Amino acid sequence: MKLEELKNKVRNVPDFPISGIMFRDITTLINDGEAFRFVIDQLHQRYRDKEIDRIVGIESRGFIFGGALADRLGCGFVIARKPGKLPAETEEESYDLEYGTATLQIHTDSIKPGERVVIIDDLLATGGTLAATTKLVERIGGEIAEIAVVIELVFLKGRDKLKNKSMFSMIQYD
Amino acid sequence: MKLEELKNKVRNVPDFPISGIMFRDITTLINDGEAFRFVIDQLHQRYRDKEIDRIVGIESRGFIFGGALADRLGCGFVIARKPGKLPAETEEESYDLEYGTATLQIHTDSIKPGERVVIIDDLLATGGTLAATTKLVERIGGEIAEIAVVIELVFLKGRDKLKNKSMFSMIQYD
Repeated sequence: MKLEELKNKVRNVPDFPISGIMFRDITTLINDGEAFRFVIDQLHQRYRDKEIDRIVGIESRGFIFGGALADRLGCGFVIARKPGKLPAETEEESYDLEYGTATLQIHTDSIKPGERVVIIDDLLATGGTLAATTKLVERIGGEIAEIAVVIELVFLKGRDKLKNKSMFSMIQYD
Repeated sequence: MKLEELKNKVRNVPDFPISGIMFRDITTLINDGEAFRFVIDQLHQRYRDKEIDRIVGIESRGFIFGGALADRLGCGFVIARKPGKLPAETEEESYDLEYGTATLQIHTDSIKPGERVVIIDDLLATGGTLAATTKLVERIGGEIAEIAVVIELVFLKGRDKLKNKSMFSMIQYD
């Protein structure tokens, strides 16, 4: 498989979840064993020599790619979750959505000060979720080696919210 | 690592999410790179010669283990999700909780008739979630090779709801 072919594995669903939105559906990509493994291969090759201590995956599609990458690298996997799901002491961060706000939490003891972290999600849109996760990781002492997503919706300019961080995406939509 | 040591990696949180419940927290297990990889090693060894076509992971902790296992096996990964998250045509199944009901959906085109499937979740409690997922997989034509969980709460007798299926758990609590 080549990177150019990967985009063909994403399903485009018009008007989901609301009218006017073209939803980029990664379920068809992960359903294809070769395409899913290709994505994890790329991430593995990118990070295997970078002395990464922890992968952080964002609820819930970030868990799919993040868990597989942590397994490949043999490093710990940390989950950033919606409120009320993590049972021990947490830090939390709220961020704006188009309508209202959302909140993410992370376990305070999940990353040790100075550990090098890669944050993984399936998709970068406006960047609010990834910016909040970045703040949480740094607040508990982690150092962001990179933020990685499978899909970047370039026209939403999410990189602007993450501008002092290294940001990697595999597939872009203008 | 040995299977007996794995239980020590699970954090026990009393009175979460409500008073009287001892919550078995797998975040400490996945946070330990060696322990997480040990779990995926065990699953990989169990299924690698079983001609598995698809792994089905249940939202959201099932995604952590299921994604990594699908990557190891090189097979497709299918996600069973709460309503409103999957953008294409779905089948859905509701099941009873202690108070009220819950619903899971699966994409209708995610499994081809006759494909051999392993369903993965982090934990077997009363079995409602796994029984519903089993029905969904069978309704779209999949054949259940096995259901696998990391933790089984034996005293809740979830196996009774899955009694005609092969069921594998790695850690048990009586």
